[in-house]
Amino acid sequence: MAALASADQLAAARAVRAAYRSGVSEPTSGVAPGLTQANLIAVPADWAFETLLYAQRNPKPCPVLEVIEPGVNALRVNERRVNERGQIESALAPGSDIRTDIGRYRIWRDGELAAEQTDARDAWEEHPDLVAFLIGCSFTFETGLAEAGIPIRHQELGRNVPMYRTNIDCAPAGRLRGEMVVSMRPIPAGRVADAVQISGRTPAVHGAPVHVGDPSSLGIADLSRPEFGDAPDVREGEIPVFWACGVTPQAAIMASKPPFAVTHAPGFMFITDVPDAEYIV
Amino acid sequence: MAALASADQLAAARAVRAAYRSGVSEPTSGVAPGLTQANLIAVPADWAFETLLYAQRNPKPCPVLEVIEPGVNALRVNERRVNERGQIESALAPGSDIRTDIGRYRIWRDGELAAEQTDARDAWEEHPDLVAFLIGCSFTFETGLAEAGIPIRHQELGRNVPMYRTNIDCAPAGRLRGEMVVSMRPIPAGRVADAVQISGRTPAVHGAPVHVGDPSSLGIADLSRPEFGDAPDVREGEIPVFWACGVTPQAAIMASKPPFAVTHAPGFMFITDVPDAEYIV
Repeated sequence: MAALASADQLAAARAVRAAYRSGVSEPTSGVAPGLTQANLIAVPADWAFETLLYAQRNPKPCPVLEVIEPGVNALRVNERRVNERGQIESALAPGSDIRTDIGRYRIWRDGELAAEQTDARDAWEEHPDLVAFLIGCSFTFETGLAEAGIPIRHQELGRNVPMYRTNIDCAPAGRLRGEMVVSMRPIPAGRVADAVQISGRTPAVHGAPVHVGDPSSLGIADLSRPEFGDAPDVREGEIPVFWACGVTPQAAIMASKPPFAVTHAPGFMFITDVPDAEYIV
Repeated sequence: MAALASADQLAAARAVRAAYRSGVSEPTSGVAPGLTQANLIAVPADWAFETLLYAQRNPKPCPVLEVIEPGVNALRVNERRVNERGQIESALAPGSDIRTDIGRYRIWRDGELAAEQTDARDAWEEHPDLVAFLIGCSFTFETGLAEAGIPIRHQELGRNVPMYRTNIDCAPAGRLRGEMVVSMRPIPAGRVADAVQISGRTPAVHGAPVHVGDPSSLGIADLSRPEFGDAPDVREGEIPVFWACGVTPQAAIMASKPPFAVTHAPGFMFITDVPDAEYIV
């Protein structure tokens, strides 16, 4: 694996992280195209094993790209690099700070959404033992879909992707349980197979769809009313295609009620420096 | 994924597990061909997060097939099945008991090998909070190599596979660190590419080799003296090919000295009911 981001891509990634750090907030579909995007869930150390186990048992919605433990600002092979600037840095994005570089965070208390904010440093001050998990995001393969001429409707409309809770229960892990969350993209019927194959090449960012074409069998009663993100626009001749989504840990938080957690807001992802090609198998 | 074992295969797996349970002990290369074999590492709960994180950061030597937590005898999706017979059962092998169904166990204290024994129930009595990890084993793809006409020398000779500590450091996780262990098979030069491609289809059981042909660059000074298993027999025209090995967690135990751990003895694997085809990607 030796995919390298271009200088332009790296500059774009740094620029958007700096903008989000300064308070800018936007859904990130289509932002910094060609780079890997990630979901965040951070939990107190007492919940870290179960969270990692939940991800291990549910790799389709929860593919782990990186784990950042307390007291260690960036981990690489054979290297424990403590960032002298006091940042909690992702190894996937040198110079980043996972507490500030996402556009919008969610703070969870006892399974309830307690706040949305553009900076999460106070959460790490309150819980210095937070363990952060970066989980693959389907926005990563949207670049490949677009390059193949497959329309990305929510990008065209300047909206967030629609996301839904489903009736698919994830495998539990200790105190953690919950259902799978999916993202949906309307795909022209003649391009569904292409979308399956293109996304299927990158299992670390959810891979191939979990479902094609029948919202009701996923327990989705009304496609026009997603639980997360914006309403879809499915046109004549298009099929709703559903991918496992990294918001699934947020459904687990709601169902399992850990005392505290921090996540990104759905659609507002962490932008890394890692090219999407890095995760093609 | 719907690969099903044949009735003959399942009967063979049950028979060998019953034999090992009754005290029989043998290296398992070539045993119950076509079924998945697994490495074991079990650690006290206090070390479970770091062990799982070590595996997550080092997926080539430590691909996790299953995690069995304390108090839960078998976990499947949406099901917490407590075995009324008091077994600590693997979901990969119904009716099994991971404390008895491996031919030879190793008991580790403070990083030192304290005992080898054919039954580990006393270890679980001493540490009821043990968390067991089953990790993929390269014996699994030997069936595919043999079916392609590639010789498996250690099987031909009735020996255990040779295994070596290397100079490749694994990515650390908390208190856990250590070098990668590899298994070695001498492959006729004209079949090396085939061996790479066949094993490469099953990343969950170590996948493609990590190294082909130069023991010294792995830090292996003397190929004839493996740290684990039996001496190899490399013949004229054969190339030593090295695969990441699930004994790697035992090297981490030696280097990191957790107070207690249980593993299988190298080469004496847990036989599951899962066909090797289940892990072909």
